[in-house]
Amino acid sequence: MQLSSKRPANPPNTDIAPTDSYDYMPKTDCSPEDLTTDPTLWCRDHRGRTYSLEELVELTQRFHGYPAPGVVIGAKMVDIALRRVPAGVLFDAVSETSKCLPDAVQLLTPCTTGNGWLRVMPFGRYALTLFDKHSGRGSRVYIDPVLLDPYPETRYWFFGIKPKRKDRSDRLIDEITQAQDRIYGIQDVRVTPELLSKNPSEQRAICPECREAYPAGHGPICRGCRPETRYFLLGGA
Amino acid sequence: MQLSSKRPANPPNTDIAPTDSYDYMPKTDCSPEDLTTDPTLWCRDHRGRTYSLEELVELTQRFHGYPAPGVVIGAKMVDIALRRVPAGVLFDAVSETSKCLPDAVQLLTPCTTGNGWLRVMPFGRYALTLFDKHSGRGSRVYIDPVLLDPYPETRYWFFGIKPKRKDRSDRLIDEITQAQDRIYGIQDVRVTPELLSKNPSEQRAICPECREAYPAGHGPICRGCRPETRYFLLGGA
Repeated sequence: MQLSSKRPANPPNTDIAPTDSYDYMPKTDCSPEDLTTDPTLWCRDHRGRTYSLEELVELTQRFHGYPAPGVVIGAKMVDIALRRVPAGVLFDAVSETSKCLPDAVQLLTPCTTGNGWLRVMPFGRYALTLFDKHSGRGSRVYIDPVLLDPYPETRYWFFGIKPKRKDRSDRLIDEITQAQDRIYGIQDVRVTPELLSKNPSEQRAICPECREAYPAGHGPICRGCRPETRYFLLGGA
Repeated sequence: MQLSSKRPANPPNTDIAPTDSYDYMPKTDCSPEDLTTDPTLWCRDHRGRTYSLEELVELTQRFHGYPAPGVVIGAKMVDIALRRVPAGVLFDAVSETSKCLPDAVQLLTPCTTGNGWLRVMPFGRYALTLFDKHSGRGSRVYIDPVLLDPYPETRYWFFGIKPKRKDRSDRLIDEITQAQDRIYGIQDVRVTPELLSKNPSEQRAICPECREAYPAGHGPICRGCRPETRYFLLGGA
Protein backbone atom coordinates (compact mmCIF):
# COMPACT_ATOMS: atom_id res chain seq x y z
CA MET A 1 0.00 0.00 0.00
CA GLN A 2 1.42 3.35 -1.02
CA LEU A 3 0.31 6.85 -0.16
CA SER A 4 1.03 9.70 -2.51
CA SER A 5 0.79 13.46 -2.18
CA LYS A 6 0.94 14.04 -5.90
CA ARG A 7 -1.50 14.02 -8.73
CA PRO A 8 -0.68 10.87 -10.72
CA ALA A 9 1.27 11.17 -13.96
CA ASN A 10 -1.33 8.96 -15.61
CA PRO A 11 -4.50 10.72 -14.66
CA PRO A 12 -7.69 8.75 -14.22
CA ASN A 13 -9.27 10.67 -17.07
CA THR A 14 -7.20 9.57 -20.05
CA ASP A 15 -9.85 7.27 -21.39
CA ILE A 16 -12.64 9.78 -21.51
CA ALA A 17 -13.45 11.08 -24.88
CA PRO A 18 -12.95 10.45 -28.55
CA THR A 19 -10.07 12.40 -30.07
CA ASP A 20 -12.43 14.40 -32.26
CA SER A 21 -14.42 15.57 -29.30
CA TYR A 22 -13.73 19.26 -29.92
CA ASP A 23 -15.88 18.82 -33.01
CA TYR A 24 -18.81 17.64 -30.96
CA MET A 25 -21.94 19.72 -31.31
CA PRO A 26 -25.03 19.27 -29.17
CA LYS A 27 -27.81 17.42 -30.89
CA THR A 28 -30.10 20.39 -31.24
CA ASP A 29 -31.44 19.04 -34.50
CA CYS A 30 -32.53 15.66 -33.15
CA SER A 31 -36.19 14.85 -32.94
CA PRO A 32 -37.55 14.28 -29.43
CA GLU A 33 -38.04 10.63 -30.36
CA ASP A 34 -34.32 10.16 -30.92
CA LEU A 35 -33.56 11.69 -27.61
CA THR A 36 -36.05 10.04 -25.33
CA THR A 37 -36.16 6.50 -26.62
CA ASP A 38 -32.75 5.58 -25.21
CA PRO A 39 -33.54 4.98 -21.54
CA THR A 40 -30.06 3.56 -20.99
CA LEU A 41 -28.15 6.82 -21.30
CA TRP A 42 -28.46 9.99 -19.27
CA CYS A 43 -24.77 10.77 -19.01
CA ARG A 44 -21.28 9.35 -19.08
CA ASP A 45 -18.57 9.82 -16.48
CA HIS A 46 -14.95 10.64 -17.30
CA ARG A 47 -14.12 6.97 -17.76
CA GLY A 48 -16.90 6.58 -20.30
CA ARG A 49 -19.18 4.68 -17.94
CA THR A 50 -22.79 5.32 -18.86
CA TYR A 51 -25.63 6.05 -16.48
CA SER A 52 -29.33 5.85 -17.19
CA LEU A 53 -31.42 8.60 -15.64
CA GLU A 54 -32.55 6.18 -12.98
CA GLU A 55 -28.99 5.12 -12.15
CA LEU A 56 -27.92 8.74 -11.95
CA VAL A 57 -30.81 9.57 -9.62
CA GLU A 58 -29.75 6.64 -7.42
CA LEU A 59 -26.12 7.78 -7.41
CA THR A 60 -27.28 11.30 -6.51
CA GLN A 61 -29.39 9.94 -3.68
CA ARG A 62 -26.38 8.09 -2.27
CA PHE A 63 -23.81 10.88 -2.49
CA HIS A 64 -25.89 14.03 -2.27
CA GLY A 65 -28.38 12.66 0.27
CA TYR A 66 -31.50 13.16 -1.82
CA PRO A 67 -32.43 13.08 -5.52
CA ALA A 68 -31.92 16.77 -6.24
CA PRO A 69 -32.95 17.93 -9.73
CA GLY A 70 -29.92 20.23 -9.73
CA VAL A 71 -27.53 17.26 -9.63
CA VAL A 72 -29.47 15.37 -12.32
CA ILE A 73 -29.45 18.41 -14.59
CA GLY A 74 -25.85 19.11 -13.60
CA ALA A 75 -24.90 15.57 -14.66
CA LYS A 76 -26.18 16.31 -18.14
CA MET A 77 -24.12 19.52 -18.16
CA VAL A 78 -20.99 17.65 -17.08
CA ASP A 79 -21.69 15.06 -19.77
CA ILE A 80 -21.89 17.78 -22.44
CA ALA A 81 -18.64 19.35 -21.23
CA LEU A 82 -16.84 15.99 -20.99
CA ARG A 83 -17.72 15.15 -24.59
CA ARG A 84 -15.70 18.22 -25.57
CA VAL A 85 -12.56 17.34 -23.61
CA PRO A 86 -9.95 15.88 -25.98
CA ALA A 87 -8.66 12.44 -25.03
CA GLY A 88 -5.75 12.42 -22.63
CA VAL A 89 -6.20 16.01 -21.48
CA LEU A 90 -5.69 16.62 -17.78
CA PHE A 91 -8.56 18.93 -16.90
CA ASP A 92 -9.74 20.99 -13.97
CA ALA A 93 -13.28 22.16 -13.26
CA VAL A 94 -15.03 25.34 -12.18
CA SER A 95 -18.58 25.38 -10.84
CA GLU A 96 -20.07 28.87 -10.80
CA THR A 97 -22.51 27.94 -8.07
CA SER A 98 -22.13 26.04 -4.81
CA LYS A 99 -25.61 24.56 -5.15
CA CYS A 100 -25.89 20.99 -6.43
CA LEU A 101 -23.68 21.40 -9.51
CA PRO A 102 -20.39 20.72 -7.64
CA ASP A 103 -21.71 17.27 -6.73
CA ALA A 104 -22.45 16.43 -10.37
CA VAL A 105 -18.83 17.36 -11.14
CA GLN A 106 -17.54 15.26 -8.24
CA LEU A 107 -19.62 12.24 -9.24
CA LEU A 108 -18.68 12.19 -12.91
CA THR A 109 -15.14 13.58 -13.08
CA PRO A 110 -11.92 13.13 -11.07
CA CYS A 111 -12.28 16.74 -9.85
CA THR A 112 -13.24 17.10 -6.18
CA THR A 113 -13.22 19.85 -3.60
CA GLY A 114 -10.46 18.14 -1.64
CA ASN A 115 -8.07 17.45 -4.50
CA GLY A 116 -8.32 21.04 -5.71
CA TRP A 117 -9.20 20.17 -9.29
CA LEU A 118 -12.70 21.56 -8.68
CA ARG A 119 -13.07 25.21 -7.75
CA VAL A 120 -16.39 26.68 -6.67
CA MET A 121 -16.87 30.33 -7.62
CA PRO A 122 -19.72 32.03 -5.72
CA PHE A 123 -21.35 33.63 -8.76
CA GLY A 124 -24.77 32.00 -8.40
CA ARG A 125 -24.81 31.12 -12.12
CA TYR A 126 -25.78 27.58 -13.06
CA ALA A 127 -22.69 26.99 -15.16
CA LEU A 128 -19.54 24.92 -15.19
CA THR A 129 -16.28 24.91 -17.09
CA LEU A 130 -13.91 22.02 -17.74
CA PHE A 131 -10.52 23.26 -18.92
CA ASP A 132 -7.13 21.86 -19.89
CA LYS A 133 -4.99 22.63 -16.88
CA HIS A 134 -1.97 23.33 -19.06
CA SER A 135 -3.39 25.43 -21.92
CA GLY A 136 -6.42 26.84 -20.10
CA ARG A 137 -8.65 26.00 -23.07
CA GLY A 138 -11.97 24.49 -22.28
CA SER A 139 -15.73 24.44 -22.56
CA ARG A 140 -18.27 26.24 -20.46
CA VAL A 141 -21.80 24.84 -20.21
CA TYR A 142 -24.62 26.92 -18.77
CA ILE A 143 -28.39 26.91 -18.52
CA ASP A 144 -29.73 29.43 -21.01
CA PRO A 145 -32.89 31.02 -19.57
CA VAL A 146 -34.29 31.73 -23.04
CA LEU A 147 -34.11 28.04 -23.94
CA LEU A 148 -36.26 27.18 -20.92
CA ASP A 149 -39.38 28.75 -22.43
CA PRO A 150 -40.82 25.45 -23.70
CA TYR A 151 -40.19 23.80 -20.31
CA PRO A 152 -42.28 25.57 -17.66
CA GLU A 153 -41.58 23.15 -14.83
CA THR A 154 -37.82 23.39 -15.39
CA ARG A 155 -38.18 27.14 -15.51
CA TYR A 156 -39.96 27.07 -12.14
CA TRP A 157 -37.13 25.00 -10.71
CA PHE A 158 -34.45 27.22 -12.23
CA PHE A 159 -35.94 30.45 -10.95
CA GLY A 160 -36.71 28.96 -7.55
CA ILE A 161 -40.45 29.24 -7.96
CA LYS A 162 -42.29 26.39 -6.31
CA PRO A 163 -45.81 25.83 -7.57
CA LYS A 164 -47.77 23.62 -5.20
CA ARG A 165 -48.50 20.74 -7.49
CA LYS A 166 -48.21 17.13 -6.54
CA ASP A 167 -47.08 15.98 -9.95
CA ARG A 168 -44.27 18.54 -10.01
CA SER A 169 -41.40 16.07 -9.74
CA ASP A 170 -42.77 13.81 -12.47
CA ARG A 171 -43.31 16.74 -14.81
CA LEU A 172 -39.79 18.02 -14.15
CA ILE A 173 -38.34 14.60 -14.98
CA ASP A 174 -40.45 14.44 -18.14
CA GLU A 175 -39.28 17.85 -19.21
CA ILE A 176 -35.58 17.42 -18.61
CA THR A 177 -35.56 14.04 -20.35
CA GLN A 178 -37.42 15.58 -23.28
CA ALA A 179 -35.15 18.60 -23.34
CA GLN A 180 -31.94 16.56 -23.30
CA ASP A 181 -29.17 18.99 -24.44
CA ARG A 182 -31.54 21.73 -25.64
CA ILE A 183 -31.62 24.00 -22.59
CA TYR A 184 -27.88 24.54 -22.33
CA GLY A 185 -25.52 27.00 -23.91
CA ILE A 186 -21.94 26.02 -24.70
CA GLN A 187 -18.96 28.33 -25.01
CA ASP A 188 -15.36 27.73 -25.96
CA VAL A 189 -13.33 29.55 -23.33
CA ARG A 190 -9.83 30.12 -22.13
CA VAL A 191 -9.45 30.59 -18.40
CA THR A 192 -7.28 33.30 -16.88
CA PRO A 193 -3.68 32.39 -16.00
CA GLU A 194 -4.37 32.56 -12.23
CA LEU A 195 -6.39 29.37 -12.54
CA LEU A 196 -3.45 27.55 -14.11
CA SER A 197 -0.77 28.49 -11.64
CA LYS A 198 -0.02 25.97 -8.97
CA ASN A 199 -0.42 27.08 -5.41
CA PRO A 200 3.06 26.62 -3.99
CA SER A 201 3.16 24.96 -0.59
CA GLU A 202 3.08 27.78 1.90
CA GLN A 203 5.38 27.93 4.89
CA ARG A 204 3.50 27.13 8.05
CA ALA A 205 3.65 28.95 11.37
CA ILE A 206 2.18 28.19 14.78
CA CYS A 207 -0.63 30.56 15.75
CA PRO A 208 0.10 32.19 19.13
CA GLU A 209 -3.58 31.96 20.07
CA CYS A 210 -4.73 28.44 19.14
CA ARG A 211 -1.24 26.86 18.94
CA GLU A 212 -2.22 25.21 15.66
CA ALA A 213 -0.32 25.35 12.37
CA TYR A 214 -1.51 27.74 9.65
CA PRO A 215 -0.09 29.37 6.50
CA ALA A 216 2.44 31.95 7.68
CA GLY A 217 1.36 34.29 4.88
CA HIS A 218 -2.02 34.79 6.55
CA GLY A 219 -0.47 37.14 9.13
CA PRO A 220 0.55 37.10 12.79
CA ILE A 221 -2.47 35.06 13.93
CA CYS A 222 -4.47 32.53 11.94
CA ARG A 223 -7.76 33.39 10.28
CA GLY A 224 -9.59 30.97 12.54
CA CYS A 225 -8.65 33.08 15.57
CA ARG A 226 -9.53 36.45 14.07
CA PRO A 227 -12.83 37.72 15.48
CA GLU A 228 -14.18 38.58 12.02
CA THR A 229 -13.78 35.04 10.67
CA ARG A 230 -13.93 32.88 13.81
CA TYR A 231 -16.94 30.56 13.49
CA PHE A 232 -17.23 28.88 16.89
CA LEU A 233 -16.98 29.38 20.63
CA LEU A 234 -15.27 26.83 22.80
CA GLY A 235 -17.47 24.74 25.08
CA GLY A 236 -20.49 22.90 23.75
CA ALA A 237 -22.89 23.91 26.53
CA MET B 1 -38.66 7.91 -9.63
CA GLN B 2 -38.98 11.11 -7.64
CA LEU B 3 -36.78 14.18 -7.54
CA SER B 4 -36.65 16.32 -4.45
CA SER B 5 -35.23 19.75 -3.72
CA LYS B 6 -35.36 19.26 0.01
CA ARG B 7 -33.18 17.66 2.63
CA PRO B 8 -35.04 14.53 3.67
CA ALA B 9 -36.95 14.52 6.95
CA ASN B 10 -35.28 11.23 7.80
CA PRO B 11 -31.65 12.06 7.25
CA PRO B 12 -29.25 9.34 6.11
CA ASN B 13 -27.26 9.78 9.29
CA THR B 14 -29.71 8.66 11.97
CA ASP B 15 -28.00 5.34 12.52
CA ILE B 16 -24.54 6.69 13.17
CA ALA B 17 -23.46 6.65 16.72
CA PRO B 18 -24.24 5.18 20.09
CA THR B 19 -26.39 7.41 22.27
CA ASP B 20 -23.62 7.85 24.79
CA SER B 21 -21.26 9.17 22.14
CA TYR B 22 -20.81 12.54 23.83
CA ASP B 23 -19.02 10.61 26.56
CA TYR B 24 -16.50 9.21 24.15
CA MET B 25 -12.89 10.04 24.93
CA PRO B 26 -10.00 9.27 22.60
CA LYS B 27 -8.04 6.19 23.58
CA THR B 28 -4.93 8.04 24.63
CA ASP B 29 -4.27 5.46 27.31
CA CYS B 30 -4.25 2.43 25.04
CA SER B 31 -1.05 0.57 24.38
CA PRO B 32 0.19 0.62 20.79
CA GLU B 33 -0.55 -3.11 20.62
CA ASP B 34 -4.24 -2.52 21.27
CA LEU B 35 -4.33 0.04 18.57
CA THR B 36 -2.43 -1.62 15.77
CA THR B 37 -3.56 -5.22 16.03
CA ASP B 38 -7.01 -4.56 14.59
CA PRO B 39 -6.31 -4.33 10.88
CA THR B 40 -10.02 -4.37 10.12
CA LEU B 41 -10.82 -0.89 11.42
CA TRP B 42 -9.43 2.45 10.36
CA CYS B 43 -12.67 4.41 10.47
CA ARG B 44 -16.42 4.23 10.30
CA ASP B 45 -18.73 6.23 8.07
CA HIS B 46 -21.94 7.92 9.26
CA ARG B 47 -23.90 4.71 8.70
CA GLY B 48 -21.52 2.76 10.90
CA ARG B 49 -19.86 0.97 7.99
CA THR B 50 -16.27 0.14 8.89
CA TYR B 51 -13.22 0.57 6.68
CA SER B 52 -9.81 -0.99 7.12
CA LEU B 53 -6.89 1.27 6.31
CA GLU B 54 -6.49 -0.53 3.02
CA GLU B 55 -10.15 -0.13 2.10
CA LEU B 56 -10.00 3.54 2.98
CA VAL B 57 -6.90 4.03 0.82
CA GLU B 58 -8.74 2.33 -2.03
CA LEU B 59 -11.80 4.53 -1.55
CA THR B 60 -9.55 7.58 -1.49
CA GLN B 61 -7.85 6.48 -4.70
CA ARG B 62 -11.21 6.16 -6.41
CA PHE B 63 -12.78 9.45 -5.30
CA HIS B 64 -9.79 11.69 -4.74
CA GLY B 65 -7.75 10.37 -7.67
CA TYR B 66 -4.72 9.24 -5.67
CA PRO B 67 -4.06 7.85 -2.19
CA ALA B 68 -3.38 11.14 -0.44
CA PRO B 69 -2.21 10.89 3.18
CA GLY B 70 -4.35 13.93 3.95
CA VAL B 71 -7.55 12.04 3.15
CA VAL B 72 -6.45 8.96 5.09
CA ILE B 73 -5.60 11.07 8.14
CA GLY B 74 -8.73 13.13 7.54
CA ALA B 75 -10.82 9.95 7.62
CA LYS B 76 -9.53 9.23 11.11
CA MET B 77 -10.45 12.79 12.12
CA VAL B 78 -13.97 12.39 10.71
CA ASP B 79 -14.24 9.07 12.54
CA ILE B 80 -13.32 10.72 15.85
CA ALA B 81 -15.84 13.52 15.27
CA LEU B 82 -18.60 11.10 14.19
CA ARG B 83 -18.21 9.07 17.38
CA ARG B 84 -19.19 12.22 19.28
CA VAL B 85 -22.34 12.97 17.29
CA PRO B 86 -25.38 11.82 19.28
CA ALA B 87 -27.63 9.37 17.46
CA GLY B 88 -30.29 10.96 15.30
CA VAL B 89 -28.68 14.38 15.18
CA LEU B 90 -28.80 16.13 11.82
CA PHE B 91 -25.31 17.55 11.50
CA ASP B 92 -23.40 19.86 9.19
CA ALA B 93 -19.64 19.99 8.68
CA VAL B 94 -16.92 22.60 8.44
CA SER B 95 -13.49 21.90 7.01
CA GLU B 96 -10.96 24.60 7.87
CA THR B 97 -8.83 23.75 4.87
CA SER B 98 -9.64 23.07 1.23
CA LYS B 99 -6.85 20.51 0.98
CA CYS B 100 -7.78 16.82 1.20
CA LEU B 101 -9.88 17.04 4.36
CA PRO B 102 -13.11 18.01 2.55
CA ASP B 103 -12.93 14.72 0.65
CA ALA B 104 -12.66 12.70 3.86
CA VAL B 105 -15.84 14.47 5.02
CA GLN B 106 -17.59 13.80 1.72
CA LEU B 107 -16.63 10.12 1.74
CA LEU B 108 -17.71 9.35 5.30
CA THR B 109 -20.62 11.69 6.02
CA PRO B 110 -23.72 12.87 4.12
CA CYS B 111 -22.16 16.35 3.94
CA THR B 112 -20.98 17.42 0.47
CA THR B 113 -19.99 20.65 -1.24
CA GLY B 114 -23.05 20.52 -3.48
CA ASN B 115 -25.67 19.85 -0.81
CA GLY B 116 -24.36 22.68 1.33
CA TRP B 117 -23.96 20.61 4.49
CA LEU B 118 -20.17 20.92 4.14
CA ARG B 119 -18.62 24.37 4.26
CA VAL B 120 -14.96 24.94 3.49
CA MET B 121 -13.37 27.84 5.38
CA PRO B 122 -10.06 28.99 3.90
CA PHE B 123 -8.14 29.06 7.17
CA GLY B 124 -5.40 26.59 6.22
CA ARG B 125 -5.81 24.75 9.55
CA TYR B 126 -6.08 20.99 9.40
CA ALA B 127 -9.29 20.85 11.41
CA LEU B 128 -12.92 19.96 11.01
CA THR B 129 -16.10 20.46 12.98
CA LEU B 130 -19.30 18.43 12.91
CA PHE B 131 -22.16 20.29 14.54
CA ASP B 132 -25.85 19.83 15.26
CA LYS B 133 -27.50 22.04 12.68
CA HIS B 134 -30.23 23.05 15.10
CA SER B 135 -28.36 23.70 18.35
CA GLY B 136 -24.96 24.52 16.86
CA ARG B 137 -23.24 22.22 19.38
CA GLY B 138 -20.55 19.98 18.06
CA SER B 139 -17.03 18.67 18.13
CA ARG B 140 -13.95 20.09 16.48
CA VAL B 141 -11.05 17.76 15.69
CA TYR B 142 -7.65 19.15 14.74
CA ILE B 143 -4.07 18.00 14.33
CA ASP B 144 -2.12 19.16 17.36
CA PRO B 145 1.46 20.01 16.27
CA VAL B 146 2.84 19.23 19.73
CA LEU B 147 1.45 15.69 19.58
CA LEU B 148 3.35 15.07 16.34
CA ASP B 149 6.74 15.07 18.07
CA PRO B 150 6.99 11.26 18.30
CA TYR B 151 6.01 10.92 14.62
CA PRO B 152 8.70 12.59 12.48
CA GLU B 153 7.40 11.42 9.12
CA THR B 154 3.90 12.66 9.91
CA ARG B 155 5.42 15.92 11.05
CA TYR B 156 7.23 16.22 7.73
CA TRP B 157 3.97 15.66 5.90
CA PHE B 158 2.07 18.10 8.11
CA PHE B 159 4.57 20.92 7.70
CA GLY B 160 4.98 20.26 3.98
CA ILE B 161 8.61 19.20 4.28
CA LYS B 162 9.51 16.50 1.82
CA PRO B 163 12.61 14.50 2.71
CA LYS B 164 13.88 12.54 -0.27
CA ARG B 165 13.54 9.05 1.07
CA LYS B 166 12.11 6.15 -0.80
CA ASP B 167 10.53 4.52 2.21
CA ARG B 168 8.72 7.71 3.11
CA SER B 169 5.21 6.50 2.29
CA ASP B 170 5.65 3.24 4.21
CA ARG B 171 6.98 5.06 7.25
CA LEU B 172 4.11 7.52 7.12
CA ILE B 173 1.61 4.67 7.03
CA ASP B 174 3.39 2.96 9.93
CA GLU B 175 3.33 6.13 11.96
CA ILE B 176 -0.28 7.09 11.43
CA THR B 177 -1.46 3.55 12.17
CA GLN B 178 0.66 3.53 15.31
CA ALA B 179 -0.52 6.99 16.31
CA GLN B 180 -4.22 6.16 15.87
CA ASP B 181 -6.12 8.92 17.76
CA ARG B 182 -3.07 10.31 19.57
CA ILE B 183 -2.12 13.20 17.27
CA TYR B 184 -5.48 14.94 17.36
CA GLY B 185 -6.99 17.49 19.66
CA ILE B 186 -10.73 17.52 20.32
CA GLN B 187 -12.84 20.48 21.40
CA ASP B 188 -16.48 20.83 22.30
CA VAL B 189 -17.70 23.86 20.39
CA ARG B 190 -20.78 25.83 19.58
CA VAL B 191 -20.82 27.41 16.14
CA THR B 192 -21.94 30.98 15.55
CA PRO B 193 -25.61 31.55 14.60
CA GLU B 194 -24.72 32.55 11.03
CA LEU B 195 -23.83 28.92 10.32
CA LEU B 196 -27.27 27.80 11.46
CA SER B 197 -29.39 30.18 9.47
CA LYS B 198 -30.80 28.89 6.23
CA ASN B 199 -29.88 30.76 3.11
CA PRO B 200 -33.24 31.85 1.79
CA SER B 201 -33.71 31.36 -1.92
CA GLU B 202 -32.62 34.56 -3.53
CA GLN B 203 -34.59 36.28 -6.24
CA ARG B 204 -32.95 35.85 -9.59
CA ALA B 205 -32.34 38.46 -12.26
CA ILE B 206 -31.04 38.26 -15.81
CA CYS B 207 -27.58 39.77 -16.20
CA PRO B 208 -27.59 42.44 -18.95
CA GLU B 209 -24.13 41.30 -20.09
CA CYS B 210 -24.21 37.49 -20.24
CA ARG B 211 -28.03 37.11 -20.31
CA GLU B 212 -27.78 34.39 -17.70
CA ALA B 213 -29.69 34.21 -14.41
CA TYR B 214 -27.92 35.23 -11.19
CA PRO B 215 -28.91 36.27 -7.64
CA ALA B 216 -30.41 39.76 -7.93
CA GLY B 217 -28.78 40.73 -4.65
CA HIS B 218 -25.34 40.60 -6.27
CA GLY B 219 -25.93 43.94 -8.00
CA PRO B 220 -26.76 45.24 -11.47
CA ILE B 221 -24.50 42.75 -13.26
CA CYS B 222 -23.50 39.26 -12.18
CA ARG B 223 -20.19 38.53 -10.50
CA GLY B 224 -19.10 36.39 -13.42
CA CYS B 225 -19.19 39.43 -15.71
CA ARG B 226 -17.35 41.79 -13.35
CA PRO B 227 -13.75 42.30 -14.50
CA GLU B 228 -12.37 41.65 -11.02
CA THR B 229 -13.95 38.20 -10.70
CA ARG B 230 -14.34 37.08 -14.31
CA TYR B 231 -12.25 33.94 -14.80
CA PHE B 232 -12.36 33.28 -18.54
CA LEU B 233 -12.25 34.86 -21.96
CA LEU B 234 -14.58 33.72 -24.70
CA GLY B 235 -13.04 31.75 -27.56
CA GLY B 236 -10.87 28.73 -26.95
CA ALA B 237 -8.15 29.65 -29.44
